Amino acid sequence: MDITLKKAAQRLLDADDILILSHRSPDGDTLGCASALLRGLHSLGKKARFLCSDPVPKKFAFLFAGVEEQVFEPGFIVSVDIADRQLFGKNLESYTEKVDLCLDHHGTNGDFAKERYVDAKASAACEILFQVLKEMQVTISSEIADCLFTGISTDTGCFRFGNVTPRTHRMAAELIELGAHAADINREMYDTKSRARLEVEKYVLQALTFHFDGKCAVLCLPASLVEELGVEEGDLDGVASMSRQVEGVLVGVTIREKEDGMLKVSLRTNPPMNASEICAEFGGGGHAAAAGCAFTGKTFDEVKGLLLEAIAKQMERCGL
Amino acid sequence: MDITLKKAAQRLLDADDILILSHRSPDGDTLGCASALLRGLHSLGKKARFLCSDPVPKKFAFLFAGVEEQVFEPGFIVSVDIADRQLFGKNLESYTEKVDLCLDHHGTNGDFAKERYVDAKASAACEILFQVLKEMQVTISSEIADCLFTGISTDTGCFRFGNVTPRTHRMAAELIELGAHAADINREMYDTKSRARLEVEKYVLQALTFHFDGKCAVLCLPASLVEELGVEEGDLDGVASMSRQVEGVLVGVTIREKEDGMLKVSLRTNPPMNASEICAEFGGGGHAAAAGCAFTGKTFDEVKGLLLEAIAKQMERCGL
Repeated sequence: MDITLKKAAQRLLDADDILILSHRSPDGDTLGCASALLRGLHSLGKKARFLCSDPVPKKFAFLFAGVEEQVFEPGFIVSVDIADRQLFGKNLESYTEKVDLCLDHHGTNGDFAKERYVDAKASAACEILFQVLKEMQVTISSEIADCLFTGISTDTGCFRFGNVTPRTHRMAAELIELGAHAADINREMYDTKSRARLEVEKYVLQALTFHFDGKCAVLCLPASLVEELGVEEGDLDGVASMSRQVEGVLVGVTIREKEDGMLKVSLRTNPPMNASEICAEFGGGGHAAAAGCAFTGKTFDEVKGLLLEAIAKQMERCGL
Repeated sequence: MDITLKKAAQRLLDADDILILSHRSPDGDTLGCASALLRGLHSLGKKARFLCSDPVPKKFAFLFAGVEEQVFEPGFIVSVDIADRQLFGKNLESYTEKVDLCLDHHGTNGDFAKERYVDAKASAACEILFQVLKEMQVTISSEIADCLFTGISTDTGCFRFGNVTPRTHRMAAELIELGAHAADINREMYDTKSRARLEVEKYVLQALTFHFDGKCAVLCLPASLVEELGVEEGDLDGVASMSRQVEGVLVGVTIREKEDGMLKVSLRTNPPMNASEICAEFGGGGHAAAAGCAFTGKTFDEVKGLLLEAIAKQMERCGL
């Protein structure tokens, strides 16, 4: 059931022994929410602890620095930034039907909780948490401001994306006034590259091929890559979008080999090209700008050939 | 002479036939200022035109779209974002002593104009222009909002750097409300890479060498590179900072060969390493975090050897 922000804050004020859940493969927003709420609840003298199916990535460890670890049987369960049941992850599966309150900013929220407050206009769930904590009269410490700022900054690509609203910027202003170390956080998030990520980017730049006068870029990622480069899965994050960033590219194709030999294709297009139509030819689907399909029993070259053919046909239809 | 923001606005209101000057090698801020002011002055029925020593880069051409070109003898000259006489550039040298009003955000402003309004707390000169235009009662159109937003966004690395203040974010919020196409501008500025830039990054990633357990990264850029890669000088912008971004790197060294064979070194360090001390050994200088020196009659390998030796000594002194 949908409830108001005010009621959501009241539920947390009425509760104790609160368990906070983040989504699997946690990012800055779900962790920023969790750490801000943990700190806020502790500051009110409540017991609160945090669970996530996957470990907290090293770069986000600072969010939990100095937070007291507490042990108790949960009396109230709140999920932050979890859009759907599948996103609880393997280790938290048992909680999917036990959530008392869901705080989220995904318009597609799966309605798994007893009560929820969803604001799809919020760029980050941390925008919601900021309001909830204020409603709860929590004193926003500089540590809490850091947590909330991290969520907002990371979910907006550092205020770069289309989900940024005037409210997003005004909250950032307020959080800086409350002591958020904005520049330090941004440096850590965006200006620091791991050696592993460097290896990935080096590979991508070498492996990218351009077709149709630079209008199409194709990237093939063999399953062995992670091991070959000595990197982790997470180091490949966002690789599919690298080709799209190249000037003049209307179709970015990433073909990734899975462990079982299946070739997963993700297509990103700019108008007038339509990713969904191209993928539909191969039994896939998606949106006009981003779609996918998959092939089994085929080589990279075969799949690349099939896709380039379909892309060429669409380009012709578009008069490109 | 320093004047108030109010007076600066009054000077512009009192003037006509206004010539606006941007600094050489123009960036988003100086051009955003110029185009916003041009549009604002035109909207008040004044004549105004714009000059810059260098051509407007293609990516900033949109700032001037639809601006009427006017021809007249200047009656009033205003410089925007120009910190010093040298920054007028070759083609505007004759104007250095003729500026009536200087609007700038550099604390080091050279005081070349009859009157100036300098606010060193402004992240971008566009923060100042926004205030000046409001003071002048100019109606901020969505085109003007785009110009101002571009300046603020580009001078702050998309709200990433330490120069961002709460005011910066609040102005961004206001500009979006006034119709700035924030997401489109940001995509164009940060998510679009030229094929030439791609070639540069590919080269850099291949050419970077790591030393002392990854604490030092060295990049050598031969003079022939620009021609070899088929790129322009501008495509090399910011290359020196790429090595610093790698996790664990305390010393980033870039050795660039000039046309005359001179090898120019730029050093970037993180504490406890001190770039200035290292460069001083070779007759150079700078700040603790960024310094430079130059060598003539030496090869890349010789210079690299000398620098690595000096770096090793300092590392030892620092107990690294």
